[in-house]
Amino acid sequence: MSESDASVQAVESLSLEQLTTLLQQIFERHGTSHTVARVLADNCARAQRDGSYSHGVFRIPGYLSSLASRWVDGQASPQVEDVASGFIRVDAANGFAQPALAAARGLLVEKARSAGIAVLAIRNSHHFAALWPDVEPFAEEGLVALSVVNSMTCVVPHGAQKPLFGTNPIAFAAPRADDHPIVFDLATSAIAHGDVQIAARKGHELPAGMGVDRRGEPTQDPKAILDGGALLPFGGHKGSALSMMVELLAAALTGGNFSFEFDWSKHPGAQTPWTGQLLIVIDPSKSGGNSFAGRSAELVRQMHAVGLERLPGDRRFKTRAQSLEHGIPLAIDELAKLRALAQ
Amino acid sequence: MSESDASVQAVESLSLEQLTTLLQQIFERHGTSHTVARVLADNCARAQRDGSYSHGVFRIPGYLSSLASRWVDGQASPQVEDVASGFIRVDAANGFAQPALAAARGLLVEKARSAGIAVLAIRNSHHFAALWPDVEPFAEEGLVALSVVNSMTCVVPHGAQKPLFGTNPIAFAAPRADDHPIVFDLATSAIAHGDVQIAARKGHELPAGMGVDRRGEPTQDPKAILDGGALLPFGGHKGSALSMMVELLAAALTGGNFSFEFDWSKHPGAQTPWTGQLLIVIDPSKSGGNSFAGRSAELVRQMHAVGLERLPGDRRFKTRAQSLEHGIPLAIDELAKLRALAQ
Repeated sequence: MSESDASVQAVESLSLEQLTTLLQQIFERHGTSHTVARVLADNCARAQRDGSYSHGVFRIPGYLSSLASRWVDGQASPQVEDVASGFIRVDAANGFAQPALAAARGLLVEKARSAGIAVLAIRNSHHFAALWPDVEPFAEEGLVALSVVNSMTCVVPHGAQKPLFGTNPIAFAAPRADDHPIVFDLATSAIAHGDVQIAARKGHELPAGMGVDRRGEPTQDPKAILDGGALLPFGGHKGSALSMMVELLAAALTGGNFSFEFDWSKHPGAQTPWTGQLLIVIDPSKSGGNSFAGRSAELVRQMHAVGLERLPGDRRFKTRAQSLEHGIPLAIDELAKLRALAQ
Repeated sequence: MSESDASVQAVESLSLEQLTTLLQQIFERHGTSHTVARVLADNCARAQRDGSYSHGVFRIPGYLSSLASRWVDGQASPQVEDVASGFIRVDAANGFAQPALAAARGLLVEKARSAGIAVLAIRNSHHFAALWPDVEPFAEEGLVALSVVNSMTCVVPHGAQKPLFGTNPIAFAAPRADDHPIVFDLATSAIAHGDVQIAARKGHELPAGMGVDRRGEPTQDPKAILDGGALLPFGGHKGSALSMMVELLAAALTGGNFSFEFDWSKHPGAQTPWTGQLLIVIDPSKSGGNSFAGRSAELVRQMHAVGLERLPGDRRFKTRAQSLEHGIPLAIDELAKLRALAQ
């Protein structure tokens, strides 16, 4: 999957503000509240800015299709419940997960700093975005954040015959002295569903070991995976165990749906999984010893000393710097489609 | 690695109490306090009972060698600090991690039930055991527990040339209605170090992709890995990212050593890594919706419905039931050695 596909055709570059405003107009035009449009546009524009193309403007048609199907409520008002000194739960009221996080974020940071650790349990929510934008801002405030979200049945548990789990990503962010935070966002499937969709659209073959076709046979054809096939977990039984953990934390613990529980058959066009999300935020200043950010910088120094060239997240930070300098490049035809959607 | 190797030779079976008492005598005989001996013996006997042979009595010589080298303090008294409503830190005072956990465990459960989530940050500690015995008891009390511990440099970060990370396991436990809890304990290395040691002792070859020799070349010879070689992370860059997260949580966040930081060269015979351990405990009764334990049972039912035969941990629970019925089988010569050590 090339991350620089946008450069092979005629492009127009937008500033982050311009792209965010355009996307906000699109969301509002298609039935979301002003607040929801602002949060989703910000998330999606940041993904595009950083070269996370599988979760950038590529996702707009899916968002709009789900909104049009009335499967997700673009006007939902998340209900925040302050349950204990370290526990917040949010009923996203069948809306998107990001506005639910935004509604509880201030309280979550306050609790993490006061209690040392806090958990945010979001249920009844739709997460259709990358997960790193949810955790990275905590690290920028000096906090350590871990988040998991379950999605929709498309991954065969290790040792099973049929799919059950979602792609169930795990994202983590930690502050680092004098540099970008350490951030990763990894699907517990062998490949992210968005990357399979992009490969199918471009006609690319996938590496071996990513998925199976509708008969359960290994395949490298992304279309065969999307057409009744399924993904495999990364790393065999270990990745499968972590995917199971994500189901337990993001669904069972939040009160949300498991990846296999929702039925959107009466909402043709629905694409956003109706599940849950868990975030854990820790204040490292409560720990003993040296400064956490200095220590994480030391770890990275030693990783480079043993030959590591690129940290997880480095490519995003590099693309971000280019976007901030030269604008966010969008293919002319893609941009024209987006502008038409905003009318 | 066969888990039933003990059955191919003459064995004597001990009850859990008998084995625990024997191991406790050994630890005390070799310089630990009564309290430390009790905690370590309980942990080690439970691993042997459940067929976790790489962390059962197999580990006794390593414990004793480390104690004899004066690298670890078998008399250490852990210092528990109540830092915030959800944060406890413990200075293990250069002792073992398990007595540090035992000293803080009551307060940790109390905080988790009160705050909804709590974290225990243990530093200046030696963890030489399996990690599942640390988390499973929380699930038996209805709590969800996650723990990470870093160890000693033996894993090459994905994309690097030399080892830096430890085997850095992640263990998770969650209650399940009317059945054993859901428990897993996975090294973020492609194979556990204990399993490499066992394979070397038995002269078995390892599967491909587990490690490299001292020149950094792939090898299936466990002795070549132990003799200046190194392990690989499981699942490529994803497992490597998780191993990095373990370093950050278990060392940077606790105030403990990274896996590459301690120098035991002045303590010949030292084998126990001097690092840190983090535990996060969540009270699922604070979440919305249905009972967590009922929901986790439903997830397992659905996993079986798609063809999964064995959950992570099932083999341990099965071996445990056999051990409870017939006793814990120990090879005659192994038992004789243990009894001699207790004199």
